[in-house]
Amino acid sequence: MAKHKITAIPSIRRLPSYLHIIRQSREEGQEYISGTVIAQELHLEPIQVRKDLAITGIVGKPKKGYPVVALMAAIEHFLGWDEIQQAVLIGAGNLGTALAGYQEFHYHGLHICAAFDRDTSKIGTSIHGVPVFSLETLPIQIRNLKATIAILTVPSSNAQEITDILVGAGISAIWNFTNVKLKVPETVVVQKEDLTSGYAMLCVMMNASRHE
Amino acid sequence: MAKHKITAIPSIRRLPSYLHIIRQSREEGQEYISGTVIAQELHLEPIQVRKDLAITGIVGKPKKGYPVVALMAAIEHFLGWDEIQQAVLIGAGNLGTALAGYQEFHYHGLHICAAFDRDTSKIGTSIHGVPVFSLETLPIQIRNLKATIAILTVPSSNAQEITDILVGAGISAIWNFTNVKLKVPETVVVQKEDLTSGYAMLCVMMNASRHE
Repeated sequence: MAKHKITAIPSIRRLPSYLHIIRQSREEGQEYISGTVIAQELHLEPIQVRKDLAITGIVGKPKKGYPVVALMAAIEHFLGWDEIQQAVLIGAGNLGTALAGYQEFHYHGLHICAAFDRDTSKIGTSIHGVPVFSLETLPIQIRNLKATIAILTVPSSNAQEITDILVGAGISAIWNFTNVKLKVPETVVVQKEDLTSGYAMLCVMMNASRHE
Repeated sequence: MAKHKITAIPSIRRLPSYLHIIRQSREEGQEYISGTVIAQELHLEPIQVRKDLAITGIVGKPKKGYPVVALMAAIEHFLGWDEIQQAVLIGAGNLGTALAGYQEFHYHGLHICAAFDRDTSKIGTSIHGVPVFSLETLPIQIRNLKATIAILTVPSSNAQEITDILVGAGISAIWNFTNVKLKVPETVVVQKEDLTSGYAMLCVMMNASRHE
């Protein structure tokens, strides 16, 4: 896996929730939004919000806050969400189908253009409008579709084998929903989603709440 | 939402991945594991791993590292994963079905004992062995099953209405997979999962990788 040292990981992880609030405020016709308002919405400290937003390069105006349109543009540009990314979905099971139908991705430039599965009963169908192809056609389709991202929702036992195919076909980034630590060359980035992280947070909060 | 100030959130989020590695090392028959080995596996700094593990109260031995069995027990106890939690799944769609079949949860004491849906074609069936009931029976079933956790995977438009029912039925914790910011009393904890956070990380890593 590429060893790019990414700093400010918690800040980056919070930016999408800021974007969500800022978009709502734009839809309500507001021109400015303050860090304090964002902080209140998300139960964070205002200083934290201002620090997080500073990584995108934008600075608020005293008493007025941040200009809404410029703030959205700054966050989207920082995250690279102002460009469309073509993604392929590997695995058209329940999780893959849920991801294909996840509306939020459309806002963020993530376009899932094709899904792939081994199950012949799924091949030729579509999930939320995304066509499902045979896994055998994966390398040629990745090139044809100019896909840069692969979203991996296959059984763990196939994860590394399919990763090797993805890497060979020139994919730049793998969003890994399996629990396998994938081996990839330095040039390929991997983001591993671990649902148990969120469950850990829930449990620690429950525990803290009981002992109050 | 309960305002319990949880510190060390990034550390808590990393603990499950440590547990995964430590469990593997126990299965390989090892008695001790060093912070450095865990750090290498996850591309972290050893000092970070030692700091994270310190929140569970365990201390390593110089040159030997941490005793594997005690370390697992300390993490599981810190997270409350040494107790079984009865959970109900609200929404038996694709995401709900994927969560019902997620094997990792079994290791962590999370027992999904029932699912609920409005769709009459799903009621009476089961998903990965979890029986699906009518949403109308939710309050009585939560009490009968002594469920403490609700996993919410319903459409966003129903999220608050169902949350109010859950709170009325005495649920302690909601694991929220919708994109609605739920209103709950102070006594109920909510962990909101945001898939776009992981996508933000992936995009920032891709960008860093391109500019090397």
